Amino acid sequence: MPYMNYLYTTCFGTFVFDQDLNLVDKRYFDDVLEANKTLSKKEMTKQEQEMTKLYPINVFVGYKKEMESSIDKWKEIQSKFSSSQFFSPNVKITKQAIKDSVTDDQLIIQTITTIETLNRAISRLSKRIREWYGYYNPETSQHIKDHEAFVREITEKTREQLLEESGHKDTMGGDLKENDKKPIIELAKNIKNLYTLKQSETDYLEEKMQIVCPNMTAITGALIGAKLLSQAGSLRDLAIMPSSTVQLLGAEKALFRHLTRHTLPPKYGILHEHPLISSAPRSMHGKIARTLADKISIASRVDYFKGDFIGDKLYGELEEKFK
Amino acid sequence: MPYMNYLYTTCFGTFVFDQDLNLVDKRYFDDVLEANKTLSKKEMTKQEQEMTKLYPINVFVGYKKEMESSIDKWKEIQSKFSSSQFFSPNVKITKQAIKDSVTDDQLIIQTITTIETLNRAISRLSKRIREWYGYYNPETSQHIKDHEAFVREITEKTREQLLEESGHKDTMGGDLKENDKKPIIELAKNIKNLYTLKQSETDYLEEKMQIVCPNMTAITGALIGAKLLSQAGSLRDLAIMPSSTVQLLGAEKALFRHLTRHTLPPKYGILHEHPLISSAPRSMHGKIARTLADKISIASRVDYFKGDFIGDKLYGELEEKFK
Repeated sequence: MPYMNYLYTTCFGTFVFDQDLNLVDKRYFDDVLEANKTLSKKEMTKQEQEMTKLYPINVFVGYKKEMESSIDKWKEIQSKFSSSQFFSPNVKITKQAIKDSVTDDQLIIQTITTIETLNRAISRLSKRIREWYGYYNPETSQHIKDHEAFVREITEKTREQLLEESGHKDTMGGDLKENDKKPIIELAKNIKNLYTLKQSETDYLEEKMQIVCPNMTAITGALIGAKLLSQAGSLRDLAIMPSSTVQLLGAEKALFRHLTRHTLPPKYGILHEHPLISSAPRSMHGKIARTLADKISIASRVDYFKGDFIGDKLYGELEEKFK
Repeated sequence: MPYMNYLYTTCFGTFVFDQDLNLVDKRYFDDVLEANKTLSKKEMTKQEQEMTKLYPINVFVGYKKEMESSIDKWKEIQSKFSSSQFFSPNVKITKQAIKDSVTDDQLIIQTITTIETLNRAISRLSKRIREWYGYYNPETSQHIKDHEAFVREITEKTREQLLEESGHKDTMGGDLKENDKKPIIELAKNIKNLYTLKQSETDYLEEKMQIVCPNMTAITGALIGAKLLSQAGSLRDLAIMPSSTVQLLGAEKALFRHLTRHTLPPKYGILHEHPLISSAPRSMHGKIARTLADKISIASRVDYFKGDFIGDKLYGELEEKFK
């Protein structure tokens, strides 16, 4: 058996060891980014090619498959090096990978989740203020059903104006002093601000959806599209899903209830909010959901691979079929 | 049997009917408020006294006990009158009663419930913004543990400043564009406003508690006192409660678990937040809670009957005993 060497490639560079594990030669990468790019290609790096020309090589320790076949050797080689030599470049690569993982679809998922949290907070606080303000003016709370209009009106108008608008001369509410009214109106102002915030977050979401997945947005609208993204985890995950999974995104509970306790299977999850479904007669729901999920699946794939815009065509087909 | 008449008193006035149920005579109240005041006294009204002098009276239909004994007669009499004759004065009385029911302790209950709802909303939104902002600058989220400080800092400082403060040169976060940062900072500003709102509601609560129940507040502090009020339903309800009930307010679940499933009985409910208890060794908790509830019970009664201020004396006794 001829005299052979060991080759060891890390993010740091390529190293050649002799059979006694003494370092024979080394080639560093120019920088971490180059290493990262080259290593992910699963072929010989430039450095390795050079080395194999210079020395008779026994095993390529840097690759996983070979590593396993010579794991003991590899451990020996590793112990020769202090890990700190590799630590800092490795951290650099990992940091860069994390930096790169902040993609537009992740931002969309953050936005839609925030909008949902905001919705819940607004609805809870609105119920609170209706009860509290009701001590002062119960007639107006009865008269204005919409929460947003309610908080806007009570911050802008006096009780007398509001009573007149709701057609009451007198009120059953207590006559609160100025400093008892103030905290109620303060709360109303803050709820009003939360509504404004929700609107601006929704605008941002729509803008972002038009950039990241224009085709899907054309079919689902920004909110439903973003919820689908959020359930799937990323645009890539959504694109590789079968359309039947897309159809049931958000109906996981009902699905597992069906599988374990043999209840009726769900027809749709998030898609039940879609206007095509909610405006259709009940008997058509399942059929529409299935076709809708098909089109969404196609659209999300076109979006993921940055294809041309065909969203309007896809939605046109849907409309033609069901309207 | 001599000829007798029926007497019928409503909020409207007193009416005398003969045995054939024809109206013989009537005396109206001067106004609704007088009627309300007089009727609640459970004795003969001025009008009834006049009538009984003028006519031989068989039965006082206006009182509940007598009503039951002559319920059929009463129904006949009632059918003779159109209900609208009584309706509008009745509505007036009820409205006034509702108006009067808006008392300071009810406002306190509204405020403390709002503060609790606000707390939940703030904590949910803070968790959201930590995740979202973490895509841009995860180091700062790690560095600043307090939610309020966190949202204040990120609205006021740039990423570079924040990184320097947390001792990092570089960030793992993605380099977001200006319009991707904006919705995050908007959310942070709104959370900051909610913190300000919570502070002003708490200030108002403290002011109010000092007026309504200064004695209890001296022992419990505004927040715990208000929570006790809210659990009891009103200051009156709290004042007539036995102190052992006060001790367990807010521990209803644990109490019923004890009664039905024979788990260990709870030692305290809301009171566990009290500094005297939370700073004491575990073995003393039950004893302190019992004594604390005693003092709170006394204080709430003094508050309800508008007695002198003895809160500091009561709290002094507690401190002496347990410190």
